[in-house]
Amino acid sequence: MGLVTISDIQAAADRIKGAAVRTPLLRFDDGLWLKPESLQPVGAFKVRGAYNALARLTEDVRARGVVAYSSGNHAQAVAYAAKLFGVPAVIVVPEDTPRVKVEATLSHGAEVVQVPMALREARAAELVAERGATLIPPFDHPDVIAGQGTVGLEVIADLPDVATVLVPVSGGGLISGVATAVKALSPATRVVGVEPELAGDAAESLRVGTLIRWPAADRARTIADGLRAEPSELTFEHMRAYVDDIVTVSEEQIGEAVGVLARRARLVVEPSGAVTLAAHLARPSSGTTVAVLSGGNVDPEVFARYL
Amino acid sequence: MGLVTISDIQAAADRIKGAAVRTPLLRFDDGLWLKPESLQPVGAFKVRGAYNALARLTEDVRARGVVAYSSGNHAQAVAYAAKLFGVPAVIVVPEDTPRVKVEATLSHGAEVVQVPMALREARAAELVAERGATLIPPFDHPDVIAGQGTVGLEVIADLPDVATVLVPVSGGGLISGVATAVKALSPATRVVGVEPELAGDAAESLRVGTLIRWPAADRARTIADGLRAEPSELTFEHMRAYVDDIVTVSEEQIGEAVGVLARRARLVVEPSGAVTLAAHLARPSSGTTVAVLSGGNVDPEVFARYL
Repeated sequence: MGLVTISDIQAAADRIKGAAVRTPLLRFDDGLWLKPESLQPVGAFKVRGAYNALARLTEDVRARGVVAYSSGNHAQAVAYAAKLFGVPAVIVVPEDTPRVKVEATLSHGAEVVQVPMALREARAAELVAERGATLIPPFDHPDVIAGQGTVGLEVIADLPDVATVLVPVSGGGLISGVATAVKALSPATRVVGVEPELAGDAAESLRVGTLIRWPAADRARTIADGLRAEPSELTFEHMRAYVDDIVTVSEEQIGEAVGVLARRARLVVEPSGAVTLAAHLARPSSGTTVAVLSGGNVDPEVFARYL
Repeated sequence: MGLVTISDIQAAADRIKGAAVRTPLLRFDDGLWLKPESLQPVGAFKVRGAYNALARLTEDVRARGVVAYSSGNHAQAVAYAAKLFGVPAVIVVPEDTPRVKVEATLSHGAEVVQVPMALREARAAELVAERGATLIPPFDHPDVIAGQGTVGLEVIADLPDVATVLVPVSGGGLISGVATAVKALSPATRVVGVEPELAGDAAESLRVGTLIRWPAADRARTIADGLRAEPSELTFEHMRAYVDDIVTVSEEQIGEAVGVLARRARLVVEPSGAVTLAAHLARPSSGTTVAVLSGGNVDPEVFARYL
């Protein structure tokens, strides 16, 4: 299986200029810097991978439109990227998706198709077949991984002597790209993934060296709703090659980190995005550390609970 | 009275590199970009002016330390800048300053002196005399104004065709610097100040062309506690020279803007920092607009009220 390369990521960085924010590193304390991907358009790093994937399509393929199935940040990112390219996007969401998320997707000009959860993938495949559109997967694709990897390029450019980069892990697209970039440019820097204990499948998989599947119902227990997916063969290969460790944090630590980020860093970060700060607060690494805050889309009621 | 020049501001920009964050512009909607100074160390633009003022002192003068009287963002900024230079800072605060603000100042290594409100200025003058320290005023000083002006430099560098820049107005240091920079680099860009209706003294002063004083008790009515100061002769001269207009917003509009920024821009912004978005939402300007969000230090209870 071919892994994404540093050249793929550098090319992605050129493509996404103007579409994604060049997020700054924000000093949290003497040892920790924050990379606030919550400030991206659509509120998450996902815009990097989605935009890169669309940019890589040929013009006539792209003109036939793109399809994604997701109710989360990836859906918004694909809708947003399609709007920037002026091409149609169809987002297939489960029928119980909150109205606010449907409206956010509609606001980017995408078409939203609501189907029973179990039919999402099939309906997306139908749309691809019917319209000649292209499916943009949330993480299991080299162009998506390369786009997410631009986060790692920026971290090393801004802080070349960083000792540890902490990255949230779900399907593994973000950490695959970040670890590829970081290890190419700064091999001594440690790349450490962070998962909720309640969805610690990637941590277990990396420990035993083979992809361990957890039941979706188990992974669904965590408040970190962006971290309930599981790695693919492709992302797991990247993790085995480049990730030093994956650690886990408790639900309580995640909630506490959301509150700390609001009060001390003045950032609205979703639970999934705050797991890296949670890991740092629980067990600070020696040397300069960067915590990637992957997104900021959190229901106001959930957020207020942690203030 | 000598006004600050674009060269002063450009020199300040070189000095503050590494001490202040080069904040990105964040796209809010088709017409509006946000300049999130809430992401600065200490959570406000004030670090720019304070650091520039300390950098301009000779080394032996700076070594004798600095003094500020403030319980707000300026105090934190002076304490933070002094820590970066490794020189002592004394912050004189009113005796009823909330413990959390005193602790924040102490956390930057500053000495905190608590006195009755009416004695702040006198006690600060005593400390200056006793220790040979230098008073760093919150806005009434060319070096402070030049430091704040770097916000304007960055806006024009990132968005050269901006039609309007909205800036919160209190003592006027920020808008004086920003307007000086913007008018020098892009004379066609409008610079518009924003005040709370309940502290609209600068708006009234600019309208009548002379500095009108409002009683402090009147200015204290607004929830925007960072906008209760009044302009000095120096800042008012800058406003008369370079500011196109000052508009006012209601308390309700301010609170609504704090909530919108949390939900849609994933930023924790204090009421004083949110007045510019409030003005935009009430009366959008034609053309591309930048709203400067001056700070993010808000009590969690106050913030939660607007979510």
